[in-house]
Amino acid sequence: MVLGKVVGTVWSTRKDENLIGSKFMIVRHLNLDLTEKESFNIAVDSVGSGVGEIVIMATGSSARQTNITKNKPIDAVIMAIVDKLDISNSEDS
Amino acid sequence: MVLGKVVGTVWSTRKDENLIGSKFMIVRHLNLDLTEKESFNIAVDSVGSGVGEIVIMATGSSARQTNITKNKPIDAVIMAIVDKLDISNSEDS
Amino acid sequence: MVLGKVVGTVWSTRKDENLIGSKFMIVRHLNLDLTEKESFNIAVDSVGSGVGEIVIMATGSSARQTNITKNKPIDAVIMAIVDKLDISNSEDS
Amino acid sequence: MVLGKVVGTVWSTRKDENLIGSKFMIVRHLNLDLTEKESFNIAVDSVGSGVGEIVIMATGSSARQTNITKNKPIDAVIMAIVDKLDISNSEDS
Amino acid sequence: MVLGKVVGTVWSTRKDENLIGSKFMIVRHLNLDLTEKESFNIAVDSVGSGVGEIVIMATGSSARQTNITKNKPIDAVIMAIVDKLDISNSEDS
Repeated sequence: MVLGKVVGTVWSTRKDENLIGSKFMIVRHLNLDLTEKESFNIAVDSVGSGVGEIVIMATGSSARQTNITKNKPIDAVIMAIVDKLDISNSEDS
Repeated sequence: MVLGKVVGTVWSTRKDENLIGSKFMIVRHLNLDLTEKESFNIAVDSVGSGVGEIVIMATGSSARQTNITKNKPIDAVIMAIVDKLDISNSEDS
Repeated sequence: MVLGKVVGTVWSTRKDENLIGSKFMIVRHLNLDLTEKESFNIAVDSVGSGVGEIVIMATGSSARQTNITKNKPIDAVIMAIVDKLDISNSEDS
Repeated sequence: MVLGKVVGTVWSTRKDENLIGSKFMIVRHLNLDLTEKESFNIAVDSVGSGVGEIVIMATGSSARQTNITKNKPIDAVIMAIVDKLDISNSEDS
Repeated sequence: MVLGKVVGTVWSTRKDENLIGSKFMIVRHLNLDLTEKESFNIAVDSVGSGVGEIVIMATGSSARQTNITKNKPIDAVIMAIVDKLDISNSEDS
């Protein structure tokens, strides 16, 4: 899964009929020190996350394994909100 | 999902029999400030988007979760047209 | 899907029993101006394409959604031959 | 599959209901000489690995093919702990 | 699929119960001129390949479409051994 930060939302009125009610979040990818990368995904939220929160995203077919995303054309889902990272010292981090 | 902009279409008469009637759109990937990246996908449209529109694409097996793409050899689908992005200020964007 | 150009074929006599009869094509990825990228895939053809032709490839599980590739260990399929690209002018292309 | 090293864990109390009890490990990707790359994944463990261990991760839908990850929104699983790598001399490694 | 060269094997005694008996090969990715890239995968072999051989790998869910890998947490399989590549002259290769 990918570590990310919710930085915004996408407004869309014209979307696939399966997606009515789905809310699209903009999630910037994070480095392990929590600085933001250039890259980002648009994801559907299954855990009530909000802008500014650090989250974990599942992608691909795994993104459809929640009640909210099942059988929908969705390839990224926020499935956890991060409380904290425990990282051990390592040679180059 | 991937943020993109429809920049053109692909003409193809010889294609897999499952794809007769499918229209292929060229979608350039976008940065969060809506400038275009070099990278692009060819995607099938499920929402009636047109050239110049900002869209969201789902990829992989999730691209087959629409009525138009079901059971077809299609790995990218335009499943939403973007009205606008709401982005909060963040450290490095 | 990925825009590519067929540049060759792979000869293989020892392959998974499901793949007997499958022909492997070498497909270089293309930029939108049809220049070749360094990157390439090996793909199975479902549309009778030949060396030198511009094609579209589907990847991942979507590559198995043709009669020729169903239930086989194949993750890239040529599913359309390109007649031409219609690209609108855009800020940086 | 991806070669990696477990460098930490992620604490998360708010997560998808399917994920209660799942433990998220931070896995840095490794080069063949076992130096760490910048890139990393968050993965669920199915083999009892611990921080500091060299592991193999499966990603995508294959990550859901264990008893621990079945039908869950998980796209990366640690499915083996590495004892050692046997690498033959090659031109540029 | 990905063109690669088997450069070694991974020893692992602690692995998911579905993987007992599976042998992990280290496969370096190749350029079209058969020079090795930095990148590599760990893959299961379904065709009896050995160190030094040029092979083709299928990844993702397609890697599970062999008798050896079915229903296992495996996302890369060697499904063909390459006899030779036939590459036509192209503008920049």
